[in-house]
Amino acid sequence: MSIYERLRPIFYPESIALVGITVANPTHWTRSFLDALARFEFQGPLYLVNLRGGEIEGRKVYRSLTEIPGCVEYVISLVAASAAPSLMKECAAKGVKIVHFCTSGFGETGEEEGIGLEAEIAKLARETGIRVIGPNGMGIYSPEARLSFNPRFPKESGFVGFISQSGGNSRRLVLESVWRGVRFSKVISFGNACDLNETDFLEYLTEDPKTRIIVLYLEGVKEGNRFLSALKRATREKTVILLKGGVTQGGAQATLGHTGSLAGNETTWDALCRQYGVIRVTSLEEITDVLVTLLFFPLPKGRNAILLGAGGGSSVEITDKFEKYGLRVPSLPQDIIDRLRSFTPAAGNILRNPIDYGQNIMEIEKLIETVNILTGYRGSDFLVTFFGAALAVYQGNNTSTEISEKLHQATVKGSSKPIAVVLAHDNLPNMAALIFPAVEKISATGAAVYYSFESAAKSIDLVLKHYHM
Amino acid sequence: MSIYERLRPIFYPESIALVGITVANPTHWTRSFLDALARFEFQGPLYLVNLRGGEIEGRKVYRSLTEIPGCVEYVISLVAASAAPSLMKECAAKGVKIVHFCTSGFGETGEEEGIGLEAEIAKLARETGIRVIGPNGMGIYSPEARLSFNPRFPKESGFVGFISQSGGNSRRLVLESVWRGVRFSKVISFGNACDLNETDFLEYLTEDPKTRIIVLYLEGVKEGNRFLSALKRATREKTVILLKGGVTQGGAQATLGHTGSLAGNETTWDALCRQYGVIRVTSLEEITDVLVTLLFFPLPKGRNAILLGAGGGSSVEITDKFEKYGLRVPSLPQDIIDRLRSFTPAAGNILRNPIDYGQNIMEIEKLIETVNILTGYRGSDFLVTFFGAALAVYQGNNTSTEISEKLHQATVKGSSKPIAVVLAHDNLPNMAALIFPAVEKISATGAAVYYSFESAAKSIDLVLKHYHM
Repeated sequence: MSIYERLRPIFYPESIALVGITVANPTHWTRSFLDALARFEFQGPLYLVNLRGGEIEGRKVYRSLTEIPGCVEYVISLVAASAAPSLMKECAAKGVKIVHFCTSGFGETGEEEGIGLEAEIAKLARETGIRVIGPNGMGIYSPEARLSFNPRFPKESGFVGFISQSGGNSRRLVLESVWRGVRFSKVISFGNACDLNETDFLEYLTEDPKTRIIVLYLEGVKEGNRFLSALKRATREKTVILLKGGVTQGGAQATLGHTGSLAGNETTWDALCRQYGVIRVTSLEEITDVLVTLLFFPLPKGRNAILLGAGGGSSVEITDKFEKYGLRVPSLPQDIIDRLRSFTPAAGNILRNPIDYGQNIMEIEKLIETVNILTGYRGSDFLVTFFGAALAVYQGNNTSTEISEKLHQATVKGSSKPIAVVLAHDNLPNMAALIFPAVEKISATGAAVYYSFESAAKSIDLVLKHYHM
Repeated sequence: MSIYERLRPIFYPESIALVGITVANPTHWTRSFLDALARFEFQGPLYLVNLRGGEIEGRKVYRSLTEIPGCVEYVISLVAASAAPSLMKECAAKGVKIVHFCTSGFGETGEEEGIGLEAEIAKLARETGIRVIGPNGMGIYSPEARLSFNPRFPKESGFVGFISQSGGNSRRLVLESVWRGVRFSKVISFGNACDLNETDFLEYLTEDPKTRIIVLYLEGVKEGNRFLSALKRATREKTVILLKGGVTQGGAQATLGHTGSLAGNETTWDALCRQYGVIRVTSLEEITDVLVTLLFFPLPKGRNAILLGAGGGSSVEITDKFEKYGLRVPSLPQDIIDRLRSFTPAAGNILRNPIDYGQNIMEIEKLIETVNILTGYRGSDFLVTFFGAALAVYQGNNTSTEISEKLHQATVKGSSKPIAVVLAHDNLPNMAALIFPAVEKISATGAAVYYSFESAAKSIDLVLKHYHM
């Protein structure tokens, strides 16, 4: 049986029991798993287990696994670390196939007791054949199976698979990316990996037809050689993005604390990524930027950017950032400038590249024509717009989100080349209140939207490099 | 007469006329100058001038400068570029000392007409002795004189002077920095600098006793040698921060469009900054970060950081970022760990450096004791907290702002060393809604607060380097 078939119940379980869920306190963190499964309308039997019994939102709470009448395929364990080994034995007796240990207090503490408990559940996993996810991880998000560890994740599936050692990072990446239009096939927060580890999940996602892009957040690797073969194969079949945590000496020490794994050498990772064609990023935010670029920014023919927006200082800044990442901002030939100037007043509209279109952008027909002329220019490969600064100014009777959408639609209408959109909030709370809804709306139309010049430039560069451009 | 005395009326004008303010449309941009001066309660006579006359909010609108009965020292010109030369002549006749031309359509267009108009007003400035600010700039913010070009700037003064070629950047930097507790002595948005230029303002701020830190946003420099002498003197007497726009070839071309100035060579600027001890930054956001560090982060004795916060992934990330910038995250000795462990449960609290205090932070007395033990450790020079991820989790009946304040107060209470606070919103709109008010409140207590691990690490490194540490 291939790993794809063997691990299938992890991503498509038929029945679930939440063991250790709190009965008394509805705001306790253990409740979020129930909230998530309820909101996702998990279709199989869903059992709740707590020693005290009782009821939660009209659902019976069983006092033990054995008390449950039907089969239980998948257990999400919310019990304290010290109770983990006896739960494993109970699971074995019940015929459970998978146990996800969410709680901490195991090997990541670096202390004898926790290390011992983790070794014990690993041993029981080998003896009983039960597969274990975690401990100290958030588990599985598999929207197609209506399985989620977070009630706020979207129900729709996408093409991105994410394997994350850190639970916090798995949550953050999904929420950040979803806002910008990305959807996921499977997300795995695997924590200490006492049984199933990064390589198992990498092999699974490589074979999973629902996954086209694989994202890895790793702090260390358990089985070096097996991981390398798996990574090599993954990069042949899918696009792979890697964020390696614990790259510095102290960072590596921190990973020891976090998930009890060993970090590799920085130079090794760098060489590896170049050799296999892995897109290497340095922050979670960059993962989202690269995903947005891969999914929503059609590959341009080259590195020549036309920059169209508002604000003199912004024009200088965006040009500096784009050229810093090896993108080019070519001068416009005189005939293009003349064509633009024929319907564009001089004051407040600087007709070079970057084009500072401060005064004219709200004349939509002219904007369409401008974009048409600019993207028709054979020396340009793609267009980047930065109209953020104009939003507050031109608001009038519209909301800023309406203006942003209008400007973006006009740009799309006029453009014959790929478009990237930068909407910067500059950490100004009132700008953020305008920008976030605009980012969500425009992203939902399938556009590549970024929060800063730097992030747009860096991720476009990474993707162009990935395709040897 | 020293430049300090000569330029005094620019920052402390006794009377102002707004020429070219729109009468009909209350939301027109020209009205923002009136809004600003009204909100700031400018104390001297304030006249409004528009060819058509009439009234704005109960104030008489004169048809011309000459119609005004009293003296006018300072004119803010909002008229079209083509009308600028005749206004200069009218100003000369009226005895005006300073004219700030706000409007664009001059040299920055790169076109004959605009270049000609700018040369004409420069010539008239030399002939009449009127000093000109701009054109194509926002002018002066001098809160002590109740003079502002933006109604949203704060009325209180501070110690930071900002000289900015770009109007948009002057607005952004003030708003971003003010949110984080910074206040300004003077801000100058000087645009094309056809008369008064960056060097004049640099000399003025160097002599201004109200200014302790000088920030420069420059795209180019008009008088190279004079500027170098002024910069050298400025760095001897004050702390100087420089953001140079137009560092790449294309960026330099963009500065040509923006303010018609010539950008220098990148290597020259770098060498210059090192030689004179200028703090060189690469973005506006970094200026704010460095200002916050200079003003609110007492200089630590060394580079050893204690990192205390919540979240395993975050712990790894902050360590990586801090070590990337040459800050050290030393291991804790066993006796410190033992003292912490005596009152800290193992599950969810990782007692290394970084300290992942996920489970315990809301026990305030324990937090104070933990901070006390950590900062009492002789191997540590300063403390960095990152409790952002915990806010959403521990909310309960408090608002997140209350929790942040409570955690911060406990940290301050327990700490014997300088503290930096990181509150990251990760571009998650609901986190931003929690984080922004917390940043404002904690900053208002005189604390150094940053939006990301990277920005905290980078600016602390820049400031330590500045002091040769």
